[in-house]
Amino acid sequence: MSFWRKCTDVYRELTEVEKYIRGALRTRQAVLAKGLKELLDAGGKRIRPALVLISGQFGEYDRKKLMPLAAGIEILHMATLVHDDIIDDADIRRGVPTIQAKWGKDMAVFTGDFLLTRAFSLITQNVEFENMHKLSDVMKAICEGEIDQYQTCYNLDITVNDYLKRIGRKTALLFSLSCRIGAEESKCAPEVVWNLWKFGKNLGMVFQIIDDLLDFSGDLQTMGKSPMTDFGNGVITLPIIYALKQPDFRDEIREIVDRREFTPAVLDHVRERVHQSGGLDYSKALADRYIRRAINNLKALPKIPARDSLKVLVKKLQERQY
Amino acid sequence: MSFWRKCTDVYRELTEVEKYIRGALRTRQAVLAKGLKELLDAGGKRIRPALVLISGQFGEYDRKKLMPLAAGIEILHMATLVHDDIIDDADIRRGVPTIQAKWGKDMAVFTGDFLLTRAFSLITQNVEFENMHKLSDVMKAICEGEIDQYQTCYNLDITVNDYLKRIGRKTALLFSLSCRIGAEESKCAPEVVWNLWKFGKNLGMVFQIIDDLLDFSGDLQTMGKSPMTDFGNGVITLPIIYALKQPDFRDEIREIVDRREFTPAVLDHVRERVHQSGGLDYSKALADRYIRRAINNLKALPKIPARDSLKVLVKKLQERQY
Repeated sequence: MSFWRKCTDVYRELTEVEKYIRGALRTRQAVLAKGLKELLDAGGKRIRPALVLISGQFGEYDRKKLMPLAAGIEILHMATLVHDDIIDDADIRRGVPTIQAKWGKDMAVFTGDFLLTRAFSLITQNVEFENMHKLSDVMKAICEGEIDQYQTCYNLDITVNDYLKRIGRKTALLFSLSCRIGAEESKCAPEVVWNLWKFGKNLGMVFQIIDDLLDFSGDLQTMGKSPMTDFGNGVITLPIIYALKQPDFRDEIREIVDRREFTPAVLDHVRERVHQSGGLDYSKALADRYIRRAINNLKALPKIPARDSLKVLVKKLQERQY
Repeated sequence: MSFWRKCTDVYRELTEVEKYIRGALRTRQAVLAKGLKELLDAGGKRIRPALVLISGQFGEYDRKKLMPLAAGIEILHMATLVHDDIIDDADIRRGVPTIQAKWGKDMAVFTGDFLLTRAFSLITQNVEFENMHKLSDVMKAICEGEIDQYQTCYNLDITVNDYLKRIGRKTALLFSLSCRIGAEESKCAPEVVWNLWKFGKNLGMVFQIIDDLLDFSGDLQTMGKSPMTDFGNGVITLPIIYALKQPDFRDEIREIVDRREFTPAVLDHVRERVHQSGGLDYSKALADRYIRRAINNLKALPKIPARDSLKVLVKKLQERQY
């Protein structure tokens, strides 16, 4: 949330969303309540609910309608994080121990389910039937995308296209739907809806490409999670895909992945080699291409303060890479 | 489904539900599709969708409205089974290997999530907002109940009352809601809704008490899952709670549970001792009490063929114990 401190309007509305989220996640089950509190206190950038609300400002902004929707989408996202951490065997997320590290995988399964059912409850509160269905289609695609990613673990033959398709489903879909739902529920004009939708899609691509890049270049401090976690779990992302195409790096990296003995020293070495291969620069360049597209989408939108908030968001995400 | 062969009307409608379920679970993700097919082919009694449809016949039966709802509730139930199997480390369910045994825990997490999102999609198709919220409250309570059960594993101090509260949330709530939603969506008179609702609650209690009893008295053949699975996972159910109250059995069972070394020989021994303690007879007697209540609820309902179908259902569940 501190991510939004400079956009006072957005920050104020997100404070309200936070109340909605906490309200929806109330439970008398003591252990669950404790786990959820830690999850909430760990914070997060709250980008998806912000997209819902900011998009809504391009039309007839109806706070009562958008609040539960924004909260529901964030809770949905939290559910996917909790379940992802099970698969990734992740110990740390947003700088604090994950549910599965602290309470065990079993509790993480239930906590994720609880979050999903609560998201369902909020989302069905006020939204148009059509948008409810779009959202459930996106949830379906996210699940399929997750399984695709899991199935292609350690698969060194995936192409840049496979990767882009995967992150499109895993991340960009929910970004774009957040914008679209916010806009449609606020009765925006069709071309405004279209531009916000495309903006969300491009921004989601930027977000995930940079997130994957940070797995190689970031540190625990700035990322809130351990670097090389994805790579160590066999998730093949853009920097590695690029490095694998370079003759000087290909065989060595293939051999390391095939051996699957990812000691800290091995991980450090891979990190270094990917850097040398130009894989990070390539990722940055691709992220920049999506940033340009996102900026173009913004240019086509009406010049209102909400547009400036989206510009700030693009800039903030862009800065994450350094 | 073969469970319903004698009720030709119900069987015919459930065949239709089955088509809805298969339609809703279509996916291009190949591994997921394979896992889901096996899950569906393993069958199941389809009690919950049957309750929706039979209850609907007490009012203005609207097939188009009730079908997706019945299918959605069954898929929701399937999701809880898939995730439960992760927690229980179960290898076999409905006579076939569980998703987690065959494809791993990670796939089981995703498959359950996929099922939840599909249930969400079907349930939101046509149902009244109010019933959607009741359903989401029930989903919340099921999650909390599951966590309660998990938290009280190996806890030998739980009482019969704790047990009844737990199975009320874990099983009876969804049974009763299936009846209630089927009745309300078909505009049944309030006292019909009330009696069906109570009937579902009592039937759910019967179902779970007998299911827990079968963990001690059943076999893989008739149950489709290994006996003593719950006990081996530390889930303390009614027969054990009863045995623990008998001075001749208490100390021995406590000691075995505290040691937590559940070899096949130990499990066989516990099974024998619970039988000797009268724990199974006690469970049967309690199940019979709920059966009488369910029958009383039926007596208060209009004398239409749907009522006979519910009577057959009670009888079928009652026969499971022998």
